[in-house]
Amino acid sequence: MAGGKYLENLWYVAGWSSDLDPGDRVGRTFLERPVVLWRAHDGTAYALEDRCAHRAMPLSAGVVDQGAIRCPYHGLEFGGDGKCIRIPAQDRVPDTARVRAYPLVEKQGLMWIWMGDPGRADKALVPDYPIHENPAYAWRSAHFPVKGNWQLLIDNLMDLSHLPYIHANTIGGNPELHFKTKTRSEKLTNGVRVVRHMPDSVPPPTYVDAAGFKGKIDRWQEIHFEPINIRIHTGACDAGSGAYDGNREGGFSMLGFHGITPETATTTHYFWSMATNILDNGVPDEVFEQTARTFREDQEVLELQQFRLTQNPAAPMIDIASDVGGRHTRQLIARLLREEEEVAALVP
Amino acid sequence: MAGGKYLENLWYVAGWSSDLDPGDRVGRTFLERPVVLWRAHDGTAYALEDRCAHRAMPLSAGVVDQGAIRCPYHGLEFGGDGKCIRIPAQDRVPDTARVRAYPLVEKQGLMWIWMGDPGRADKALVPDYPIHENPAYAWRSAHFPVKGNWQLLIDNLMDLSHLPYIHANTIGGNPELHFKTKTRSEKLTNGVRVVRHMPDSVPPPTYVDAAGFKGKIDRWQEIHFEPINIRIHTGACDAGSGAYDGNREGGFSMLGFHGITPETATTTHYFWSMATNILDNGVPDEVFEQTARTFREDQEVLELQQFRLTQNPAAPMIDIASDVGGRHTRQLIARLLREEEEVAALVP
Amino acid sequence: MAGGKYLENLWYVAGWSSDLDPGDRVGRTFLERPVVLWRAHDGTAYALEDRCAHRAMPLSAGVVDQGAIRCPYHGLEFGGDGKCIRIPAQDRVPDTARVRAYPLVEKQGLMWIWMGDPGRADKALVPDYPIHENPAYAWRSAHFPVKGNWQLLIDNLMDLSHLPYIHANTIGGNPELHFKTKTRSEKLTNGVRVVRHMPDSVPPPTYVDAAGFKGKIDRWQEIHFEPINIRIHTGACDAGSGAYDGNREGGFSMLGFHGITPETATTTHYFWSMATNILDNGVPDEVFEQTARTFREDQEVLELQQFRLTQNPAAPMIDIASDVGGRHTRQLIARLLREEEEVAALVP
Repeated sequence: MAGGKYLENLWYVAGWSSDLDPGDRVGRTFLERPVVLWRAHDGTAYALEDRCAHRAMPLSAGVVDQGAIRCPYHGLEFGGDGKCIRIPAQDRVPDTARVRAYPLVEKQGLMWIWMGDPGRADKALVPDYPIHENPAYAWRSAHFPVKGNWQLLIDNLMDLSHLPYIHANTIGGNPELHFKTKTRSEKLTNGVRVVRHMPDSVPPPTYVDAAGFKGKIDRWQEIHFEPINIRIHTGACDAGSGAYDGNREGGFSMLGFHGITPETATTTHYFWSMATNILDNGVPDEVFEQTARTFREDQEVLELQQFRLTQNPAAPMIDIASDVGGRHTRQLIARLLREEEEVAALVP
Repeated sequence: MAGGKYLENLWYVAGWSSDLDPGDRVGRTFLERPVVLWRAHDGTAYALEDRCAHRAMPLSAGVVDQGAIRCPYHGLEFGGDGKCIRIPAQDRVPDTARVRAYPLVEKQGLMWIWMGDPGRADKALVPDYPIHENPAYAWRSAHFPVKGNWQLLIDNLMDLSHLPYIHANTIGGNPELHFKTKTRSEKLTNGVRVVRHMPDSVPPPTYVDAAGFKGKIDRWQEIHFEPINIRIHTGACDAGSGAYDGNREGGFSMLGFHGITPETATTTHYFWSMATNILDNGVPDEVFEQTARTFREDQEVLELQQFRLTQNPAAPMIDIASDVGGRHTRQLIARLLREEEEVAALVP
Repeated sequence: MAGGKYLENLWYVAGWSSDLDPGDRVGRTFLERPVVLWRAHDGTAYALEDRCAHRAMPLSAGVVDQGAIRCPYHGLEFGGDGKCIRIPAQDRVPDTARVRAYPLVEKQGLMWIWMGDPGRADKALVPDYPIHENPAYAWRSAHFPVKGNWQLLIDNLMDLSHLPYIHANTIGGNPELHFKTKTRSEKLTNGVRVVRHMPDSVPPPTYVDAAGFKGKIDRWQEIHFEPINIRIHTGACDAGSGAYDGNREGGFSMLGFHGITPETATTTHYFWSMATNILDNGVPDEVFEQTARTFREDQEVLELQQFRLTQNPAAPMIDIASDVGGRHTRQLIARLLREEEEVAALVP
């Protein structure tokens, strides 16, 4: 558990673009630092330190006025670059009147923020998620507060062997089926890929409801981690129709995007979307609600886990066979944290 | 105040046997350590560390399945001895897959747990409370959470001179009567015994309600402490009928059992039962409720005391005359704590 | 921010005399120390350490009995000088049975307490506020709990340039007017005086409601700080009628008294009164409620500020032009804190 240590130099999901209309602002904490996200009236979104340079007042309690956000206490105004542009009853605005600006990029419905060294904030590195722009898919999104460390959420998503226990009533399916399924995990240059295939299996209720399978199915779970988001492609075709050879025409696909942004050592922002290929009128309420309910079941687990870990952080934990993907992920994160520490040590 | 230091090597009350039907489980914290109590379908009760060896999930959130308790997250199953007996999707169960098992004994309606060195857990030392099995008595029990250190609760029960103040409306009786009553405290080998006699006194409302006394009474309070439970025998006979010489026939007896188990340095499990000899149809609701209300009055006091002690733990306290029993108890506990420390220091 | 460091040797407001009828008691925390304020049946008010010398029980949970306050647990009684005068069931009361007594003075409707060295508690130094006894004024009082450090509340009151932002809907008035107003601050021997004049200005809604101004007004804000209370005299006369030369006959005056007493490093007791000269039937409900609402707006600001300061106490803050009065105040407080430390260092 790296509680309190965070990867700094990467793009984190800060929110959904739809969270902010022009003139809106919202205060959020990322990596233990308060940030105000706001959208100017021209449509541009910004991220600033959420603490006025004057008397520490949260700017997120203020108002957006055209291209600036105004502190609610004494009226100081800050532009998107963090510089104060107006101090009431004072002609000169000193250079010290500024708050930290965080690079923010909007892409494919997501707002991405860079909390680390601004000089390394390369927009070309913003993760790509074209599903959100693909007209063949319908999708819906959510923002869940999780009362657990970010690595617990990663563990949860990288090892789906918990499905028959935590989610027995929804997406779980037959426990024995899950036990027999081989989990393969592969280390990538900057990621981890986990694949589980369940050929010739009985479809779980969700699948039957959504896609109308009549017989057995070839089912797959493909999980791709890169720091720090996870894409999970689950789906199925009629058994024997060639899904594992790439022929997934006519099958059922659910594509989950999972943005995981640490809030504190024990709390996490969980931004997720669910896309599906098969439905004409968008993701129906019942499918979305069932997915949300499933993820809330996970949150209850993470909260209980975190409670025990906080009580006794030093107690040992053992790994089991299905942890292979999670373990690869932890190894990658540990390497990246070491690299960041080495770079930090070089700074004079 | 020994806040944060606990006697380890003795039998503590973990709960009432009636707390658990077969297949039930409940999570409780004793001596700052999380414990799951559960009853297998064959009727045997067990106590295990309430933290799965895999990912720290509380087992008390799981389910009992015949002779095992199953973690709700990934389905690991543990037997009553703490050994993991099944890891889904894995053939071999390693020896490291285990949680700590605490010795648990059921006797006379109580579950007793041993939190210390398991090698010293002698079942012959489980305290005996035959009243719970004596057909001449009816009894009812409760479990109260107390927001105060365990020693505060002991102080409270060892010195009943607080009755006319805290419990003026129920069991208090005339303050002057209490002031004139001599408190005698005697040190025993492994305990303390406090006796107060109030001859020829006016019965308090509770006594009149329960036993129908018409005139004055010879009243007694006999308190017996052993680490760590307290039995309080209070009662009365008609004045002059020989109660202090042992003739208590036809009198009224209330026998209280008080199991005191530290939860944390500032919170305590209070397991109590109230038995009475005189009533044909068990302890009536009003007597039980009045007792419970009385004990709740004590809890409010302990919570306020604890609040002040937490604010300033080092501030001095003075003893008064009626503290003699409590002081003997503290001396005994201090000696036992020293002995445990000496034994611990010997372990290489 | 002096969080956790307090000026000790001065008279603080402990409450309003009207808070306590004879026989009443109330527990409050000042400078992190629990105090019970109580009024004997003869009408005298006292302040004692709110922790019984015996078992740390708050005396404020007890009862006043004539000239003593009785602990609710075992009945010990303490007089106004802190000495125990009765221990039930015990003939002798030892000298160690006492709690700390704090000097308390009642004057002009206020109770003033001295938390520091009792030998320096000179009653001649109790601040004078004759407005409360002047029949030309009507006044009403309140006690607000503020979730912010005491210095934040002082800052708030010494710099009224926040009015157009926080109080736009009530006493704010035209922002531009406030911006153009010169703030003059003067250091006094034991205080700070801030004056702002707004000649020939449009009256804010409150003023029109209360005083019926028909045209423009000469408006003033005069703020006087002494450790640690603030008097704010705001008001107006018809423009050009000589208010700035001392002729305020027929004008509208609001006189605010602001007693600021630290509770903890992050919470403050705020005792305020509002007096006005112009109204025949006392301060009307709507004026008092509007004032209270205004001060509640300030409290929300202070709570948000304190939250950010607690998150990161070391982060820098900048001053702006309107901070001149607050800066003078902080300089004075810093000097007084240094002097107290020097005196404390001399004590052997």
